[in-house]
Amino acid sequence: MLEELRRQVWEANMELSRRGLVTYTWGNVSGIFREEGLVVIKPSGVEYEKLTPGMLVILDLEGNRVEGDLNPSSDTPTHLELYRAFPGIGGVAHTHSVYATAWAQAGRGLPCYGTTHADYFYGEIPCTRNLTPQEIGEGYEKNTGKTIVEAFDGRNPAYVPGVLCKNHGPFTWGRDAAQAVYHGVVLEEVARMNLMTELLSRGGDCRAPKSMVEKHFSRKHGPDAYYGQRREQS
Amino acid sequence: MLEELRRQVWEANMELSRRGLVTYTWGNVSGIFREEGLVVIKPSGVEYEKLTPGMLVILDLEGNRVEGDLNPSSDTPTHLELYRAFPGIGGVAHTHSVYATAWAQAGRGLPCYGTTHADYFYGEIPCTRNLTPQEIGEGYEKNTGKTIVEAFDGRNPAYVPGVLCKNHGPFTWGRDAAQAVYHGVVLEEVARMNLMTELLSRGGDCRAPKSMVEKHFSRKHGPDAYYGQRREQS
Amino acid sequence: MLEELRRQVWEANMELSRRGLVTYTWGNVSGIFREEGLVVIKPSGVEYEKLTPGMLVILDLEGNRVEGDLNPSSDTPTHLELYRAFPGIGGVAHTHSVYATAWAQAGRGLPCYGTTHADYFYGEIPCTRNLTPQEIGEGYEKNTGKTIVEAFDGRNPAYVPGVLCKNHGPFTWGRDAAQAVYHGVVLEEVARMNLMTELLSRGGDCRAPKSMVEKHFSRKHGPDAYYGQRREQS
Amino acid sequence: MLEELRRQVWEANMELSRRGLVTYTWGNVSGIFREEGLVVIKPSGVEYEKLTPGMLVILDLEGNRVEGDLNPSSDTPTHLELYRAFPGIGGVAHTHSVYATAWAQAGRGLPCYGTTHADYFYGEIPCTRNLTPQEIGEGYEKNTGKTIVEAFDGRNPAYVPGVLCKNHGPFTWGRDAAQAVYHGVVLEEVARMNLMTELLSRGGDCRAPKSMVEKHFSRKHGPDAYYGQRREQS
Repeated sequence: MLEELRRQVWEANMELSRRGLVTYTWGNVSGIFREEGLVVIKPSGVEYEKLTPGMLVILDLEGNRVEGDLNPSSDTPTHLELYRAFPGIGGVAHTHSVYATAWAQAGRGLPCYGTTHADYFYGEIPCTRNLTPQEIGEGYEKNTGKTIVEAFDGRNPAYVPGVLCKNHGPFTWGRDAAQAVYHGVVLEEVARMNLMTELLSRGGDCRAPKSMVEKHFSRKHGPDAYYGQRREQS
Repeated sequence: MLEELRRQVWEANMELSRRGLVTYTWGNVSGIFREEGLVVIKPSGVEYEKLTPGMLVILDLEGNRVEGDLNPSSDTPTHLELYRAFPGIGGVAHTHSVYATAWAQAGRGLPCYGTTHADYFYGEIPCTRNLTPQEIGEGYEKNTGKTIVEAFDGRNPAYVPGVLCKNHGPFTWGRDAAQAVYHGVVLEEVARMNLMTELLSRGGDCRAPKSMVEKHFSRKHGPDAYYGQRREQS
Repeated sequence: MLEELRRQVWEANMELSRRGLVTYTWGNVSGIFREEGLVVIKPSGVEYEKLTPGMLVILDLEGNRVEGDLNPSSDTPTHLELYRAFPGIGGVAHTHSVYATAWAQAGRGLPCYGTTHADYFYGEIPCTRNLTPQEIGEGYEKNTGKTIVEAFDGRNPAYVPGVLCKNHGPFTWGRDAAQAVYHGVVLEEVARMNLMTELLSRGGDCRAPKSMVEKHFSRKHGPDAYYGQRREQS
Repeated sequence: MLEELRRQVWEANMELSRRGLVTYTWGNVSGIFREEGLVVIKPSGVEYEKLTPGMLVILDLEGNRVEGDLNPSSDTPTHLELYRAFPGIGGVAHTHSVYATAWAQAGRGLPCYGTTHADYFYGEIPCTRNLTPQEIGEGYEKNTGKTIVEAFDGRNPAYVPGVLCKNHGPFTWGRDAAQAVYHGVVLEEVARMNLMTELLSRGGDCRAPKSMVEKHFSRKHGPDAYYGQRREQS
């Protein structure tokens, strides 16, 4: 089972690279085995062309290395914080993809301008606040996770499976590592089309009507979903 | 004949993907056999890499499944509405391609800024109005088709073979499934160059002169067309 | 010699497509054999994947077909006008490449913002005026050529080997068909970087200083050129 | 050792092309053998597809050719100026990549808007002033190098391994030719995401907080760096 997870997380990391979301080593994906409380994650600074399943690092939820010779991704404490705070998620992905990062650098949440967004994210994708110098000094990566959790206060992370970290870039999640990557691809695509939308908007409000957002999200994810075959989706 | 249509529609779906207009499963193409009143369409949520001709679904114009085990595209009622309202068309394509979707999200019709546009679309490509909550509740996909037909009141769908659905994305059509996809590619390209045009326009009106639009459309499509070989075109 | 030219022009057409400047059939390249007054050009509406050297059409400078079964490009009269007016050129290329077309649709000449531009084009690349309805009616493609020549009144077409046709797209030229395509690639690249420059300019004047433009153009093309090997360049 | 350097510099030149930073011959990379004071550099105007290690030119720091039949890159005096002024660097790369060039043409330094930038460049990447007509006349390429050095007065070139030359394009450097190219890729990516950031910024100040910039730069490059494996990085 852990070996199966290792392979899934490796495959999800490779998919991140194949989808063009990663330059050099700027991204990482993890997955969790909830029953054992073990997390599999990409090692730090290893190029995707050289990454093999055996290089992945296995940790417990406190960050103690259980298996693997390499250092885990430097963003590991952020992943762990998300697994602890959002018990329903099975995978996390992080990139510096261009358009999602541009929104993050502008410090703006991504508004829902259309159905491409609403098919996967129910409403605005929030942007975190900046960390204080003290939070940076005392545990930058862990506190990055805490600002994400803070931004989801009152929101359901299953309905909005991603976030923009201010002046940094996106994190996305899902039921497993593959879906976390899938949501990262969607987020980048939506970030790009929404930027283009603003260039054409002449200052108008482009947000999709609430009834339309609800319809699109629920026809894919609601109890009466009818998109796809036999209730499968990704 | 129906088998020939099935192959054409499958080929047109694959072309949509090859041309880079589709991320994951965000697009679908259909074709119609007018004599029998039968429509062939992509199944819902199936990835293009796995799509075979045998997976396509065949329906009558009321949406009753005639052949195929899978669910048809969730946008099927929109396609059917177009086939009923526009008797001259033989194929329909739908995508979420980035630039066409950006204009749709901005709620703006695509103005005719040059000959690339005028070679295929005679004048502005309209943008529909939003559906009311009631229209969404009573038959979202079918009513999406109705707002398209409404936007073509007084226009010839053969002269402007495409539309932007507000906060959603483009639909295009043509004499067959292949030409519907062709028009989808043209629309995306024009949507991109027209956005770039506006970034350079300094607020000026960039619309091409009427005489030029007429010349370009008619040299390809009029009774005295001289573009191409022996009156063939696509 | 004519067969050699036919191969060169075919090769230049294929290069236009390989460089990504062409969608479908939206582009064409020609070359001239000055001693015989014969022009070789792409046939109209033929897809690049199917184009063979034998399909090219050979015409005299009045447009009479000398060899070939297919119709020549519908833009042929524009090419011929350029060969008649600019005796120093040996090849002409036309595309609807996105960024060059955006400047043409905005009706703006391309200002010289840097050395990439100055290495090939000495100063602004002009944009033509629109044709009058009468000019369109009496010979659209030929009169398109005349507006290009008009825009070069007082300019040397060897120093600025390209133009933007208003609401249409770019034409470029050179000593042969290959160089015409090369200049088309440069123009598209410069059109793109200059659009991005304006997005960053905050209203300032970004034109490169005259002394710098002169230096770059002359180190590649002047009598004391020292760029490249043994005075070869393209 | 010199042969090893020749191969490294050739490989770095090919990488520049593979990464999509170069159109035609618009770029060059060099490396230095400090002990002997010898520089290996790309020959001028040679296409990347034809470049072999044996074509590279070897010069001393005064620009005298020591080995090779071809002329060195016309930008050679700029490279030499950088090697003389910055004794810690081992390689230099120059491109006309689109987004970095756009900032250079706009005459603006690249502000640090996020962690992608801060991971490699500690703060703003400066833009040089324009050369005077006299400086252009008396040694354009050498004086280009001098304006770069001038822009680094009071800055550490190891902390900000790149520069934008006004109305021209970027130069980057590193401990060797490969790292100079790596920094060129990073600079282009950051130039692109920062332009997109400004399009979304609504006039706000997007600069990353100082404590965050410091954290990201030091976790990769400081004495207590913990990114990657065993202190290796690029």
